Amino acid sequence: LPGAASADPLPSWRDDGAQARIEAFVEAVTDPASEDYVTPARRIAVFDNDGTLWSEQPAYFQLLFALDVLKTKAEADPSILTSDVLKAAAAGDMEGMMAGGVKGLLEVVDVSHAGMSVEAFQADAAAWLAETAHPTSDLPYAAMTYQPMIELLSYLRDEGFSTWIVSGGGVHFIRAVAQDAYGIPPWQVIGSRGNLSYDAEGKALMKDGGVSLVDDKEGKPVGIDQQIGVRPILAAGNSDGDFAMLDYVTAGDGPSLGLLVHHTDGAREFAYDREGHIGVLNQGLDEAEGRGWLLVDMKADWTRIWTGGE
Amino acid sequence: LPGAASADPLPSWRDDGAQARIEAFVEAVTDPASEDYVTPARRIAVFDNDGTLWSEQPAYFQLLFALDVLKTKAEADPSILTSDVLKAAAAGDMEGMMAGGVKGLLEVVDVSHAGMSVEAFQADAAAWLAETAHPTSDLPYAAMTYQPMIELLSYLRDEGFSTWIVSGGGVHFIRAVAQDAYGIPPWQVIGSRGNLSYDAEGKALMKDGGVSLVDDKEGKPVGIDQQIGVRPILAAGNSDGDFAMLDYVTAGDGPSLGLLVHHTDGAREFAYDREGHIGVLNQGLDEAEGRGWLLVDMKADWTRIWTGGE
Ligand SMILES: [Ca+2]
Ligand SMILES: [Ca+2]
Repeated sequence: LPGAASADPLPSWRDDGAQARIEAFVEAVTDPASEDYVTPARRIAVFDNDGTLWSEQPAYFQLLFALDVLKTKAEADPSILTSDVLKAAAAGDMEGMMAGGVKGLLEVVDVSHAGMSVEAFQADAAAWLAETAHPTSDLPYAAMTYQPMIELLSYLRDEGFSTWIVSGGGVHFIRAVAQDAYGIPPWQVIGSRGNLSYDAEGKALMKDGGVSLVDDKEGKPVGIDQQIGVRPILAAGNSDGDFAMLDYVTAGDGPSLGLLVHHTDGAREFAYDREGHIGVLNQGLDEAEGRGWLLVDMKADWTRIWTGGE
Repeated sequence: LPGAASADPLPSWRDDGAQARIEAFVEAVTDPASEDYVTPARRIAVFDNDGTLWSEQPAYFQLLFALDVLKTKAEADPSILTSDVLKAAAAGDMEGMMAGGVKGLLEVVDVSHAGMSVEAFQADAAAWLAETAHPTSDLPYAAMTYQPMIELLSYLRDEGFSTWIVSGGGVHFIRAVAQDAYGIPPWQVIGSRGNLSYDAEGKALMKDGGVSLVDDKEGKPVGIDQQIGVRPILAAGNSDGDFAMLDYVTAGDGPSLGLLVHHTDGAREFAYDREGHIGVLNQGLDEAEGRGWLLVDMKADWTRIWTGGE
């Protein structure tokens, strides 16, 4: 069918921008006659989640979920608030909570979710994401995935890639929605990890709190090696937390593509880069051009933002 | 073709033993009309490695490799031998080394391999396994995989399963041969882990030593959750180090199969179970029948042992 053959695989991307660069890369690595041809097994694409596949303002969605849970827990038992970060979190003091950096955020997340099974946690997280409205968009959080990135994931899979998430967020939180939201199965989600133990009585994995892997910055190549074991050929991120991942992925011998989503659209989404607590992008902006990384301009390149939007 | 349709998928298994039980399970979970049907994405099968997919006597192959490397390193710099286990290892005192248990073995492994890139380590390990002869079989270590288990892996994949390794051995050591030996890609190998760091200068992952996951006993369900994220439906092992993994896998709501390879063939391989330092099988032998786990009798069930043998 001519319609099928000529269908645009990336309908929410403007034809004259980043889309051309992405398609040229994909065509080169999938054409057996190309010197850049890559076998399907090695077509591995890794994606940051917060700010790359869905929104992350006014705070990481996982943190907003953790706050809801923490408040409820602290009302029943205030003694769980053992640090300044936890006290700020339970009091709704976002600034005080963010001051603890990524480690502090992980503390809030882990304390709020410790002592339950992975299965129960993932059911709670999935329900919260589907049912809770975002404070400014009024969409359910789960609907705030970026439609252009969903299309990119799907396009890559159609072209024989495997698609993976490599996120600073907690692995179980992302797995709660990754299959439905992104078509990505649990075993292709890499994230920060708390301690786990096997409960032989309940035959279940239990979340014990603590942090065994911070899958951010230099931790991203580490998480990739632990869970994938080979160097991917495409990496997408949005902040300097992704710099090491793009550095690693684009240093391979063969063809590679590094991509940074630049939050330029204050009208439709949020505009931010060099300043703030979330999604800070300095080194990436400074070095993208010199390294040949693709800067995706959300305002210019995307005709639509959220999957759940218009 | 009648020949293809009736071909035995497990030619090195005797028709009247364990094979029938395995095939009945596979047929039930792959038949859409069966009440035990499982979708392909959830047909996840996990395999222990040492003693389950290849031999482990007179010691874990990784340990014999580590000893070779450690001896060479210690000749150049004896100060690396900072513990009794390491000193025993470098002196060739196997009993003294084994006295440290799994943690001690991991210490030998990690110290012998710290300070090099993952890529260089895997190349060394692959070369050693292909080129070094086993002391009693005289086969290269890489040829001492069990032919019946290779056939089982292949049969399961043909039936839509994904096949994974979940081993107490080091993940990078196994990845060095898993694709060639078992048809299992790096991202489907779960094993014990040392600490890693990203070397931004060399654009490579570096092995820093230490132990961040002991993927043995209760650590096996933990490794499975970290890297797969859903409960498998088939688990195969050979020792009490696999008990928790089989307990977890066979506790799911749907159909499942637990399998233990019992080392009964002293003439063709090695005969051992309840005693010794390696592959100790007590609880598994005591409880297999009551739990409905399949005990594979190597002497009775397998017509051939090693892939590289006759
Ligand atoms: Ca991000
Ligand atoms: Ca074993």
